[in-house]
Amino acid sequence: MEALGFIGLGRMGRAMAQNLVAAGFPVRVWNRTPGKAPPGAVEKRSAREVAQECRIVITMLADDAAVESVARELLESLPKGGVHLGMSTISVALSRKLAQDHTARGQRYVAAPVFGRPEAAQAKQLWIVAGGEWQDLKPIFDALGQGIHPVPQPEQANLVKLCGNFLIASVIESFGEALALAEKGGIDPQQLMGFFGSTMFNAPVIKNYGNRIAATEFEPAGFAMPLGLKDIRLVLTAGEELRAPLPLAGLIRDHFLAALARGRDNWDWGGLASAIREAAGLPPTRTSANAAPR
Amino acid sequence: MEALGFIGLGRMGRAMAQNLVAAGFPVRVWNRTPGKAPPGAVEKRSAREVAQECRIVITMLADDAAVESVARELLESLPKGGVHLGMSTISVALSRKLAQDHTARGQRYVAAPVFGRPEAAQAKQLWIVAGGEWQDLKPIFDALGQGIHPVPQPEQANLVKLCGNFLIASVIESFGEALALAEKGGIDPQQLMGFFGSTMFNAPVIKNYGNRIAATEFEPAGFAMPLGLKDIRLVLTAGEELRAPLPLAGLIRDHFLAALARGRDNWDWGGLASAIREAAGLPPTRTSANAAPR
Repeated sequence: MEALGFIGLGRMGRAMAQNLVAAGFPVRVWNRTPGKAPPGAVEKRSAREVAQECRIVITMLADDAAVESVARELLESLPKGGVHLGMSTISVALSRKLAQDHTARGQRYVAAPVFGRPEAAQAKQLWIVAGGEWQDLKPIFDALGQGIHPVPQPEQANLVKLCGNFLIASVIESFGEALALAEKGGIDPQQLMGFFGSTMFNAPVIKNYGNRIAATEFEPAGFAMPLGLKDIRLVLTAGEELRAPLPLAGLIRDHFLAALARGRDNWDWGGLASAIREAAGLPPTRTSANAAPR
Repeated sequence: MEALGFIGLGRMGRAMAQNLVAAGFPVRVWNRTPGKAPPGAVEKRSAREVAQECRIVITMLADDAAVESVARELLESLPKGGVHLGMSTISVALSRKLAQDHTARGQRYVAAPVFGRPEAAQAKQLWIVAGGEWQDLKPIFDALGQGIHPVPQPEQANLVKLCGNFLIASVIESFGEALALAEKGGIDPQQLMGFFGSTMFNAPVIKNYGNRIAATEFEPAGFAMPLGLKDIRLVLTAGEELRAPLPLAGLIRDHFLAALARGRDNWDWGGLASAIREAAGLPPTRTSANAAPR
């Protein structure tokens, strides 16, 4: 099998690189902080070195700045016909630019952001949104996820990913408000969530976040608050570019800011609901020392 | 079996009365507009007459005003020990008042609002939220629905129902925004909804409204726009009483008003998304004659 480059070994990336090794691909990795290579992967000293040895390089990084910085090395070092497979959650604008820049160098950019938390990455249960000419990369996707949703352009794959994260944040906002209202009416939020989650709202994402909010369990983070704010910012920026007002996204952004203003950087983004609770005079979590009056 | 009174034969009420007849209950009905009695039910000339013949009377009416008007007759005509089983979606405040008034007359008020559209009522697939002393009424619920979620007080059952309808409206708002953004980015909303509805967001309510919004099919109404506005108003009123700010509910209210300002009273409440589409420069439906520029 052809060697694959993999850049970015955070919680998601490391689990994904591990699955590529398990699927039999020779894997060359680089990460800003060294020593994170999964067993069986060969650690390189730079993104450039990875691109010199592999025709296909995957990036799985935290934000636009990290991807841009690595992309400069890939643009210079990938061979003609080389493929940059971008799986990070980045802006629509950067995805468009990367597609243009790689094409100008006779290379190819494929965007394939993923849905799923680190446990889903480990279990090969990711959902992959693939934009661009991805068909020959299907064996890679098969080693990482449970399904592919194709869209024509790379930047559209990133837009779908942002729409999905916005919808998850909307679940957090709406259940945050509904469960705070119910709690103030003397209703047990966990019993109520048990009812909603087993009837009308029995989708995995809703049960996951609804139960977290009902239990006011916001630590440890599966997906931390600042990453949630980043994604909502990218959604709002996409809305600006496409002239699509997103009042709910704006409201969610302000609740992220209210929660971060209280120093909750290490909380899960479900902890957005803490700002809604406090606005209603409830303590941020039911176990908080600073319990407010009902 | 004991005779049951049933007042209110709209699309929901008529299907429910029919199922009580089918379950073997002798059923006495009254409706403001006569001639709506299902086969096997005996039509009476007033709510008072129904209450004089039945110890248990169910009300399934459109709003607070209709329930208050009928409740006056029930309070006067039900025997001591009589039961008013209120299944309408009404305000928390009216539910509390009815419980007090019936108790003062030695009667009982049980609130049991339901989740489900008319097709679900016909198919005995309703979810019933029961508040108060409802245990002896279980055979009635078994004839109408697929499950019961109990809460201690009648008014809490109405609060749960309002929370649920607010969450459904939140689904309409969030998918309205996300699918408008995607469409402006050149993505096919129906394909995207097919992906979301079969993966992370595979709950019945989300698929129902998401698919409707993606197809911009807002007629005929399953649950009409003015009823949606009424329920959001009740949610906001409950929030005022309980001092729980609900910014998302406020935002949804304004989108109902924007859609109703364009005369869409006969549209399904999913048509709330038309106001979001128009704000983004999209036509209210993709088949609209007055298509706006992209």
